[in-house]
Amino acid sequence: MTESSGPEEQAFTPRDDDFAPLRWRSGTLYLIDQDQLPARTVWLSCTSVDDVIRAIRDRRIRGTAIGCAAAYAVAMAARAAVAQTPLPSPLELRREIDGVIARIGGPQPTPLIFWALAQMRNTGRIAEGARDPYMLADALEARAVAVHAEDVGRCRRIGHNGAALVPIGAAVLTVGNAGALASGGHGTALGILRTARAEGRQPRVVVCETRPFLLGSRLTAWELMREGFDVTIIPDGAAAAVLRRGDIGCVIVGADRVAANGDVVGHVGTYAVALAASAAQVPFYVAAGAAALDLELAHGGDAAIEERDGSDLLTIGEALIAPRDAISRYPIQDVTPAALVSALVTDTGVARAPFTRAMPALD
Amino acid sequence: MTESSGPEEQAFTPRDDDFAPLRWRSGTLYLIDQDQLPARTVWLSCTSVDDVIRAIRDRRIRGTAIGCAAAYAVAMAARAAVAQTPLPSPLELRREIDGVIARIGGPQPTPLIFWALAQMRNTGRIAEGARDPYMLADALEARAVAVHAEDVGRCRRIGHNGAALVPIGAAVLTVGNAGALASGGHGTALGILRTARAEGRQPRVVVCETRPFLLGSRLTAWELMREGFDVTIIPDGAAAAVLRRGDIGCVIVGADRVAANGDVVGHVGTYAVALAASAAQVPFYVAAGAAALDLELAHGGDAAIEERDGSDLLTIGEALIAPRDAISRYPIQDVTPAALVSALVTDTGVARAPFTRAMPALD
Repeated sequence: MTESSGPEEQAFTPRDDDFAPLRWRSGTLYLIDQDQLPARTVWLSCTSVDDVIRAIRDRRIRGTAIGCAAAYAVAMAARAAVAQTPLPSPLELRREIDGVIARIGGPQPTPLIFWALAQMRNTGRIAEGARDPYMLADALEARAVAVHAEDVGRCRRIGHNGAALVPIGAAVLTVGNAGALASGGHGTALGILRTARAEGRQPRVVVCETRPFLLGSRLTAWELMREGFDVTIIPDGAAAAVLRRGDIGCVIVGADRVAANGDVVGHVGTYAVALAASAAQVPFYVAAGAAALDLELAHGGDAAIEERDGSDLLTIGEALIAPRDAISRYPIQDVTPAALVSALVTDTGVARAPFTRAMPALD
Repeated sequence: MTESSGPEEQAFTPRDDDFAPLRWRSGTLYLIDQDQLPARTVWLSCTSVDDVIRAIRDRRIRGTAIGCAAAYAVAMAARAAVAQTPLPSPLELRREIDGVIARIGGPQPTPLIFWALAQMRNTGRIAEGARDPYMLADALEARAVAVHAEDVGRCRRIGHNGAALVPIGAAVLTVGNAGALASGGHGTALGILRTARAEGRQPRVVVCETRPFLLGSRLTAWELMREGFDVTIIPDGAAAAVLRRGDIGCVIVGADRVAANGDVVGHVGTYAVALAASAAQVPFYVAAGAAALDLELAHGGDAAIEERDGSDLLTIGEALIAPRDAISRYPIQDVTPAALVSALVTDTGVARAPFTRAMPALD
């Protein structure tokens, strides 16, 4: 991977007025370097499958953007293969591609990567009968672009389904970054805000800074402010007080997984805001693609939650913000019980309690 | 004010095993520079009343330590006056002292400064009949030391009253820094932990980092770890998840003010933790000196809460953590309704609901 100031302006991006954190141009995948935001806007260019695998492993991309990147990596592998001498046969190319897919997915691919790679594998199978390997490589590239466009399309449908929930002129509180930066473009929770804004609802946005990685202040504030949203950043601990004093019309957050009973597994901090919203009788909405619905997960409590154990909380930049030998250990996700969720907004519709009955219709 | 590596070890400190954030030695008041903790342990030496006023105004000292510093400033003024030629008469000295007290207190002294300065004023009045001004200056210095010692004594009584609430071997969660660093020494919430530890209850401590000023990770972790406590730092947003999974025996926090109905005005983030503790059925205890009980404040909602509006959330050290032109605006305190408070621990006793009846007995 190398850094650059980014692809030229005419680079592929789903729609001009929407930010996409990954762009495909002439066989190179450009990823915005989220670690450097908001101080610098730097694009990482991935020119090989290994570059993409490294970017995924190092968490340089998040959310459904990971699936899009995985699809582009397969297209990249196909392009590289047909540039070789001797030219592989369509069958040889498909075997090569299957190997690459296994490598990207790893032993336990996340649902997002799994879905994207299944699309690519199917495309490879269908196009195997193609007369020449170039056609197969072209089909795989077209499919990767389609995987990306479908992801943006899902976000747009989430936005369309959820926009009417945003009271006109209201302040909407959000946690983390369920935005364009965590998707192919448009975003889930922030997609609803974008669509609501496009519909003239003039939402103002109150963003929890969302420690430890400051996804709210670094990323959500950045992507909304560049589009002219009215954004106010608050400390995570202030959300409850701000909700209690009646400033907020509704809360909209994203989700990593939604269990069959409607429990929401999301970025740590989500549950605390859900409790505060409930106490203040402010609606709490969860936005997620249908792919995040996990009907095999009966309850959120059954989800495996990663425990972080490291130095995330000890320094920011050069500044030491805790004793050097302090221990920090915390769950990186939390579970919001379905009882605190006013509605779940997906690309296929809006579900309200009882979720056990409403959710299968969305799947 | 000048920086130094601190007063000699034999400097006044209430008890050797307890940390005091301010020390009085040979007419100089040493304050630990909390802004530089935990990276550096630097003491600021105040040699004039103006130094102390500046330290208070710049929020270099917090909590009841402010009252102690104010008292020492008066003693400092008296020492300076009796070093002058010609020597002032006791009456002249008392007038000088009254002027200094008015200057330190300002037009609207906080309750803490008000109380400490009232002690000093009374001492001045009582000692006015002294034969010479040196005796009056000595009486004022002795009174300042007593004001400090009384503050530590109150914290010790809070610790004594609250220690039995800490389940043996339990993890105790706290927010902010209601510690030695916010008092003459020992601390309120952390005073309970210190006493519980001295009694063999072996509390482990889970500290919310407490944005925006990181009072938990910078100060609470520092002051507890230097005494050998087992400390784990978590992001503020993780407190609800950590409470929900059953890891915490009880929550103990400090308070800025407690209203007559038991509502607690405290550092922003306290209310969010109270909600989460209630949802998880974990006891939520509030520690405060009787001086913080404000029976004239009927409800917490009536308290004036300062709104911060600035760049606190935009940078940490040199690192830019939000868009440069972002707006941050939030209340620096919040109100925890009495219904979420399991017990209030003061130096005069322990009150439980209904607080309206229990609290006047503590006052």
